Amino acid sequence: MTLSMYQASVPVFVRALTNLAHVLKKGEAHARAKGVTDEVLLNTRLIPDMLPLVKQVQIACDMATRGAARLAGVEPASFEDNETTLEQVQARIQRAIEYVQGFGASQIDGSEGRDIHLKMRNGEMDFKGQDYLFGFVMPNLYFHCTTTYVILREAGAELGKTDFIAGAQQ
Amino acid sequence: MTLSMYQASVPVFVRALTNLAHVLKKGEAHARAKGVTDEVLLNTRLIPDMLPLVKQVQIACDMATRGAARLAGVEPASFEDNETTLEQVQARIQRAIEYVQGFGASQIDGSEGRDIHLKMRNGEMDFKGQDYLFGFVMPNLYFHCTTTYVILREAGAELGKTDFIAGAQQ
Repeated sequence: MTLSMYQASVPVFVRALTNLAHVLKKGEAHARAKGVTDEVLLNTRLIPDMLPLVKQVQIACDMATRGAARLAGVEPASFEDNETTLEQVQARIQRAIEYVQGFGASQIDGSEGRDIHLKMRNGEMDFKGQDYLFGFVMPNLYFHCTTTYVILREAGAELGKTDFIAGAQQ
Repeated sequence: MTLSMYQASVPVFVRALTNLAHVLKKGEAHARAKGVTDEVLLNTRLIPDMLPLVKQVQIACDMATRGAARLAGVEPASFEDNETTLEQVQARIQRAIEYVQGFGASQIDGSEGRDIHLKMRNGEMDFKGQDYLFGFVMPNLYFHCTTTYVILREAGAELGKTDFIAGAQQ
Protein backbone atom coordinates (compact mmCIF):
# COMPACT_ATOMS: atom_id res chain seq x y z
CA MET A 1 0.00 0.00 0.00
CA THR A 2 1.43 3.36 -1.00
CA LEU A 3 -0.18 6.66 -0.11
CA SER A 4 -1.89 8.39 -3.03
CA MET A 5 -3.59 11.72 -3.64
CA TYR A 6 -6.93 9.94 -3.73
CA GLN A 7 -6.41 8.29 -0.34
CA ALA A 8 -5.25 11.62 1.12
CA SER A 9 -8.36 13.42 -0.10
CA VAL A 10 -11.65 11.58 -0.80
CA PRO A 11 -11.82 9.26 2.25
CA VAL A 12 -10.39 12.04 4.46
CA PHE A 13 -13.05 14.51 3.29
CA VAL A 14 -15.82 11.93 3.65
CA ARG A 15 -14.73 11.15 7.18
CA ALA A 16 -14.55 14.83 8.19
CA LEU A 17 -18.03 15.48 6.77
CA THR A 18 -19.48 12.31 8.31
CA ASN A 19 -18.18 13.39 11.71
CA LEU A 20 -19.51 16.90 11.08
CA ALA A 21 -22.98 15.43 10.46
CA HIS A 22 -22.65 13.46 13.72
CA VAL A 23 -21.61 16.57 15.69
CA LEU A 24 -24.54 18.51 14.24
CA LYS A 25 -26.92 15.69 15.15
CA LYS A 26 -25.86 15.98 18.78
CA GLY A 27 -26.20 19.76 18.55
CA GLU A 28 -29.70 19.31 17.18
CA ALA A 29 -30.67 17.03 20.08
CA HIS A 30 -29.55 19.69 22.54
CA ALA A 31 -31.37 22.45 20.67
CA ARG A 32 -34.59 20.38 20.62
CA ALA A 33 -34.33 19.66 24.35
CA LYS A 34 -33.88 23.35 25.09
CA GLY A 35 -36.54 24.59 22.67
CA VAL A 36 -34.00 26.42 20.48
CA THR A 37 -35.31 26.86 16.94
CA ASP A 38 -33.34 25.76 13.88
CA GLU A 39 -33.23 29.38 12.75
CA VAL A 40 -31.61 30.54 15.97
CA LEU A 41 -29.12 27.65 16.08
CA LEU A 42 -28.11 28.02 12.42
CA ASN A 43 -27.53 31.74 12.90
CA THR A 44 -25.48 31.37 16.09
CA ARG A 45 -22.06 32.98 15.91
CA LEU A 46 -19.16 32.84 18.37
CA ILE A 47 -18.72 36.60 18.00
CA PRO A 48 -20.49 39.05 15.69
CA ASP A 49 -17.66 39.21 13.15
CA MET A 50 -17.34 35.45 12.72
CA LEU A 51 -19.62 33.48 10.39
CA PRO A 52 -22.75 31.75 11.72
CA LEU A 53 -23.10 27.99 12.12
CA VAL A 54 -24.89 27.44 8.81
CA LYS A 55 -22.11 29.20 6.89
CA GLN A 56 -19.42 27.17 8.69
CA VAL A 57 -21.09 23.97 7.48
CA GLN A 58 -21.62 25.29 3.95
CA ILE A 59 -17.95 26.25 3.62
CA ALA A 60 -16.80 22.90 5.05
CA CYS A 61 -18.93 21.16 2.39
CA ASP A 62 -17.60 23.42 -0.36
CA MET A 63 -14.00 22.80 0.66
CA ALA A 64 -14.55 19.07 0.28
CA THR A 65 -16.56 19.16 -2.97
CA ARG A 66 -14.42 21.79 -4.67
CA GLY A 67 -11.26 20.17 -3.34
CA ALA A 68 -12.11 16.80 -4.84
CA ALA A 69 -13.28 18.30 -8.14
CA ARG A 70 -10.24 20.53 -8.63
CA LEU A 71 -7.84 17.71 -7.81
CA ALA A 72 -9.68 15.65 -10.44
CA GLY A 73 -9.34 18.52 -12.93
CA VAL A 74 -13.11 18.96 -13.15
CA GLU A 75 -15.13 22.16 -12.79
CA PRO A 76 -16.67 21.94 -9.29
CA ALA A 77 -20.45 21.57 -9.01
CA SER A 78 -22.13 24.55 -7.41
CA PHE A 79 -24.31 24.02 -4.34
CA GLU A 80 -26.74 26.79 -3.46
CA ASP A 81 -26.42 28.21 0.07
CA ASN A 82 -30.11 28.20 0.92
CA GLU A 83 -30.48 25.94 3.96
CA THR A 84 -32.79 27.24 6.67
CA THR A 85 -33.37 24.07 8.74
CA LEU A 86 -31.09 21.49 10.36
CA GLU A 87 -32.67 18.82 8.17
CA GLN A 88 -31.65 20.76 5.08
CA VAL A 89 -28.15 21.26 6.47
CA GLN A 90 -27.84 17.50 7.06
CA ALA A 91 -29.03 16.91 3.49
CA ARG A 92 -26.41 19.37 2.22
CA ILE A 93 -23.68 17.42 4.01
CA GLN A 94 -24.99 14.14 2.55
CA ARG A 95 -25.04 15.63 -0.96
CA ALA A 96 -21.46 16.81 -0.47
CA ILE A 97 -20.38 13.35 0.72
CA GLU A 98 -22.03 11.68 -2.28
CA TYR A 99 -20.48 14.18 -4.68
CA VAL A 100 -17.00 13.62 -3.23
CA GLN A 101 -17.50 9.84 -3.34
CA GLY A 102 -18.34 10.17 -7.03
CA PHE A 103 -14.66 10.77 -7.80
CA GLY A 104 -12.54 7.69 -8.35
CA ALA A 105 -8.89 7.08 -7.60
CA SER A 106 -8.07 7.16 -11.32
CA GLN A 107 -9.28 10.78 -11.52
CA ILE A 108 -7.37 12.08 -8.49
CA ASP A 109 -4.23 9.95 -8.31
CA GLY A 110 -1.32 11.69 -9.98
CA SER A 111 -2.68 15.18 -9.22
CA GLU A 112 0.32 16.13 -7.04
CA GLY A 113 1.61 18.59 -9.64
CA ARG A 114 -1.70 19.60 -11.21
CA ASP A 115 -2.06 23.38 -11.69
CA ILE A 116 -4.96 24.71 -9.68
CA HIS A 117 -6.11 28.27 -10.03
CA LEU A 118 -8.51 29.84 -7.55
CA LYS A 119 -10.43 33.07 -7.94
CA MET A 120 -11.22 34.27 -4.45
CA ARG A 121 -13.00 37.28 -3.03
CA ASN A 122 -9.67 38.86 -2.17
CA GLY A 123 -7.54 37.86 -5.16
CA GLU A 124 -6.33 34.88 -7.15
CA MET A 125 -4.23 31.97 -5.97
CA ASP A 126 -2.18 29.40 -7.83
CA PHE A 127 -1.29 26.02 -6.39
CA LYS A 128 0.10 22.68 -7.38
CA GLY A 129 -2.32 19.90 -6.43
CA GLN A 130 -0.37 18.66 -3.42
CA ASP A 131 -0.01 22.13 -1.88
CA TYR A 132 -3.65 22.86 -2.64
CA LEU A 133 -4.72 19.73 -0.74
CA PHE A 134 -2.42 20.08 2.27
CA GLY A 135 -1.97 23.85 2.45
CA PHE A 136 -5.47 25.00 1.59
CA VAL A 137 -8.27 22.42 1.45
CA MET A 138 -7.42 20.38 4.53
CA PRO A 139 -6.72 23.23 7.00
CA ASN A 140 -9.81 25.06 5.73
CA LEU A 141 -12.00 21.97 5.99
CA TYR A 142 -10.89 21.26 9.56
CA PHE A 143 -11.08 24.94 10.48
CA HIS A 144 -14.78 25.09 9.60
CA CYS A 145 -15.58 21.67 11.09
CA THR A 146 -13.87 22.70 14.34
CA THR A 147 -15.62 26.06 14.42
CA THR A 148 -18.96 24.28 13.96
CA TYR A 149 -18.06 22.02 16.88
CA VAL A 150 -17.07 25.01 19.05
CA ILE A 151 -20.29 26.90 18.27
CA LEU A 152 -22.34 23.86 19.35
CA ARG A 153 -20.14 23.29 22.38
CA GLU A 154 -20.60 26.90 23.49
CA ALA A 155 -24.34 26.47 22.88
CA GLY A 156 -24.25 23.68 25.49
CA ALA A 157 -24.42 20.55 23.30
CA GLU A 158 -23.22 17.30 24.88
CA LEU A 159 -20.09 16.95 22.77
CA GLY A 160 -16.54 15.79 23.34
CA LYS A 161 -13.54 15.86 21.04
CA THR A 162 -14.09 12.19 20.20
CA ASP A 163 -17.30 13.21 18.43
CA PHE A 164 -15.20 15.45 16.18
CA ILE A 165 -12.38 12.93 15.60
CA ALA A 166 -14.23 9.62 15.44
CA GLY A 167 -17.89 10.61 15.01
CA ALA A 168 -20.38 7.82 15.47
CA GLN A 169 -17.64 5.13 15.19
CA GLN A 170 -16.28 5.83 18.70
CA MET B 1 6.66 13.89 -7.83
CA THR B 2 4.60 11.30 -5.97
CA LEU B 3 2.96 11.94 -2.63
CA SER B 4 4.66 10.23 0.29
CA MET B 5 3.97 9.79 3.99
CA TYR B 6 6.83 12.19 4.75
CA GLN B 7 5.39 14.93 2.54
CA ALA B 8 1.94 14.38 4.05
CA SER B 9 3.26 14.75 7.59
CA VAL B 10 6.48 16.67 8.39
CA PRO B 11 6.01 19.76 6.17
CA VAL B 12 2.27 19.80 6.96
CA PHE B 13 2.92 19.73 10.72
CA VAL B 14 5.65 22.39 10.42
CA ARG B 15 3.33 24.65 8.49
CA ALA B 16 0.47 24.23 10.97
CA LEU B 17 2.78 25.00 13.92
CA THR B 18 4.43 27.94 12.12
CA ASN B 19 1.00 29.44 11.48
CA LEU B 20 0.03 28.71 15.10
CA ALA B 21 3.08 30.70 16.26
CA HIS B 22 2.01 33.54 13.94
CA VAL B 23 -1.56 33.52 15.28
CA LEU B 24 -0.25 33.57 18.86
CA LYS B 25 2.05 36.48 18.02
CA LYS B 26 -0.95 38.51 16.91
CA GLY B 27 -2.83 37.42 20.02
CA GLU B 28 0.11 38.57 22.13
CA ALA B 29 0.14 42.00 20.46
CA HIS B 30 -3.52 42.42 21.31
CA ALA B 31 -3.03 41.27 24.91
CA ARG B 32 -0.12 43.72 25.35
CA ALA B 33 -2.17 46.59 23.93
CA LYS B 34 -5.02 45.82 26.32
CA GLY B 35 -2.85 45.17 29.36
CA VAL B 36 -3.86 41.50 29.58
CA THR B 37 -1.21 39.46 31.40
CA ASP B 38 0.32 36.31 29.92
CA GLU B 39 -1.14 34.33 32.79
CA VAL B 40 -4.68 35.48 32.06
CA LEU B 41 -4.37 34.97 28.30
CA LEU B 42 -2.82 31.48 28.63
CA ASN B 43 -5.59 30.43 31.00
CA THR B 44 -8.43 31.76 28.85
CA ARG B 45 -11.05 29.16 27.95
CA LEU B 46 -14.01 29.37 25.60
CA ILE B 47 -16.20 27.76 28.24
CA PRO B 48 -15.27 26.32 31.64
CA ASP B 49 -15.25 22.69 30.47
CA MET B 50 -12.94 23.27 27.51
CA LEU B 51 -9.15 23.40 27.88
CA PRO B 52 -7.35 26.74 28.25
CA LEU B 53 -5.23 28.35 25.55
CA VAL B 54 -1.90 27.05 26.86
CA LYS B 55 -3.17 23.47 26.82
CA GLN B 56 -4.51 23.85 23.26
CA VAL B 57 -1.02 24.85 22.11
CA GLN B 58 0.70 22.09 24.09
CA ILE B 59 -1.57 19.43 22.60
CA ALA B 60 -1.10 20.80 19.08
CA CYS B 61 2.67 20.54 19.59
CA ASP B 62 2.39 17.02 20.99
CA MET B 63 0.23 15.87 18.09
CA ALA B 64 2.95 17.00 15.66
CA THR B 65 5.95 15.68 17.60
CA ARG B 66 4.38 12.37 18.59
CA GLY B 67 2.85 12.00 15.15
CA ALA B 68 6.20 12.36 13.39
CA ALA B 69 8.00 10.10 15.88
CA ARG B 70 5.42 7.31 15.76
CA LEU B 71 5.30 7.35 11.98
CA ALA B 72 9.09 7.04 12.06
CA GLY B 73 8.80 4.10 14.49
CA VAL B 74 10.65 6.01 17.21
CA GLU B 75 9.61 6.53 20.86
CA PRO B 76 8.35 10.15 20.98
CA ALA B 77 10.35 12.68 22.99
CA SER B 78 8.49 14.00 26.00
CA PHE B 79 8.01 17.75 26.40
CA GLU B 80 7.10 19.02 29.84
CA ASP B 81 3.90 21.09 30.07
CA ASN B 82 5.30 23.89 32.21
CA GLU B 83 4.92 27.07 30.13
CA THR B 84 3.66 30.10 32.05
CA THR B 85 4.52 32.93 29.62
CA LEU B 86 3.83 33.56 25.94
CA GLU B 87 7.58 33.62 25.31
CA GLN B 88 7.85 30.11 26.73
CA VAL B 89 4.88 28.98 24.64
CA GLN B 90 6.53 30.33 21.50
CA ALA B 91 9.73 28.51 22.48
CA ARG B 92 7.73 25.30 22.94
CA ILE B 93 6.33 25.63 19.43
CA GLN B 94 9.81 26.24 18.02
CA ARG B 95 11.18 23.17 19.84
CA ALA B 96 8.32 21.12 18.41
CA ILE B 97 9.03 22.40 14.90
CA GLU B 98 12.73 21.58 15.22
CA TYR B 99 11.96 18.13 16.60
CA VAL B 100 9.58 17.37 13.73
CA GLN B 101 12.11 18.68 11.20
CA GLY B 102 14.65 16.27 12.66
CA PHE B 103 12.88 13.37 10.96
CA GLY B 104 13.92 12.60 7.42
CA ALA B 105 11.92 11.21 4.51
CA SER B 106 13.77 7.89 4.78
CA GLN B 107 12.42 7.39 8.32
CA ILE B 108 8.77 8.19 7.54
CA ASP B 109 8.28 7.13 3.95
CA GLY B 110 6.78 3.67 3.76
CA SER B 111 5.00 4.01 7.11
CA GLU B 112 1.51 3.64 5.54
CA GLY B 113 1.02 0.19 7.08
CA ARG B 114 3.16 0.61 10.22
CA ASP B 115 1.43 -0.63 13.38
CA ILE B 116 0.89 2.20 15.83
CA HIS B 117 -0.38 1.56 19.32
CA LEU B 118 -1.60 4.39 21.55
CA LYS B 119 -2.23 4.26 25.25
CA MET B 120 -4.71 7.03 26.01
CA ARG B 121 -6.40 8.27 29.14
CA ASN B 122 -9.59 6.52 28.09
CA GLY B 123 -8.27 3.30 26.58
CA GLU B 124 -5.92 1.95 23.93
CA MET B 125 -6.05 2.47 20.18
CA ASP B 126 -4.44 0.63 17.30
CA PHE B 127 -3.84 2.17 13.91
CA LYS B 128 -1.99 1.57 10.71
CA GLY B 129 0.31 4.52 9.94
CA GLN B 130 -1.86 6.05 7.21
CA ASP B 131 -5.04 5.99 9.33
CA TYR B 132 -3.10 7.32 12.31
CA LEU B 133 -1.91 10.29 10.23
CA PHE B 134 -5.19 11.13 8.49
CA GLY B 135 -7.75 9.92 11.03
CA PHE B 136 -6.06 10.97 14.25
CA VAL B 137 -3.01 13.25 14.08
CA MET B 138 -4.18 15.66 11.41
CA PRO B 139 -7.75 16.30 12.66
CA ASN B 140 -6.42 16.62 16.23
CA LEU B 141 -3.65 19.00 15.20
CA TYR B 142 -6.04 21.26 13.30
CA PHE B 143 -8.65 20.99 16.03
CA HIS B 144 -6.28 22.44 18.62
CA CYS B 145 -4.80 25.04 16.25
CA THR B 146 -8.32 26.20 15.35
CA THR B 147 -9.42 26.30 18.98
CA THR B 148 -6.36 28.42 19.81
CA TYR B 149 -7.35 30.77 16.98
CA VAL B 150 -10.95 30.96 18.21
CA ILE B 151 -9.89 31.69 21.81
CA LEU B 152 -7.72 34.59 20.58
CA ARG B 153 -10.43 35.78 18.20
CA GLU B 154 -12.98 35.84 21.00
CA ALA B 155 -10.41 37.68 23.13
CA GLY B 156 -10.46 40.42 20.48
CA ALA B 157 -7.19 39.77 18.62
CA GLU B 158 -6.89 41.21 15.10
CA LEU B 159 -7.01 37.89 13.29
CA GLY B 160 -8.53 36.61 10.07
CA LYS B 161 -8.70 33.08 8.70
CA THR B 162 -5.73 33.85 6.43
CA ASP B 163 -3.56 34.07 9.54
CA PHE B 164 -4.56 30.49 10.34
CA ILE B 165 -4.19 29.16 6.79
CA ALA B 166 -1.20 31.08 5.45
CA GLY B 167 0.39 32.58 8.56
CA ALA B 168 3.04 35.21 7.91
CA GLN B 169 3.34 34.18 4.22
CA GLN B 170 0.07 35.83 3.27
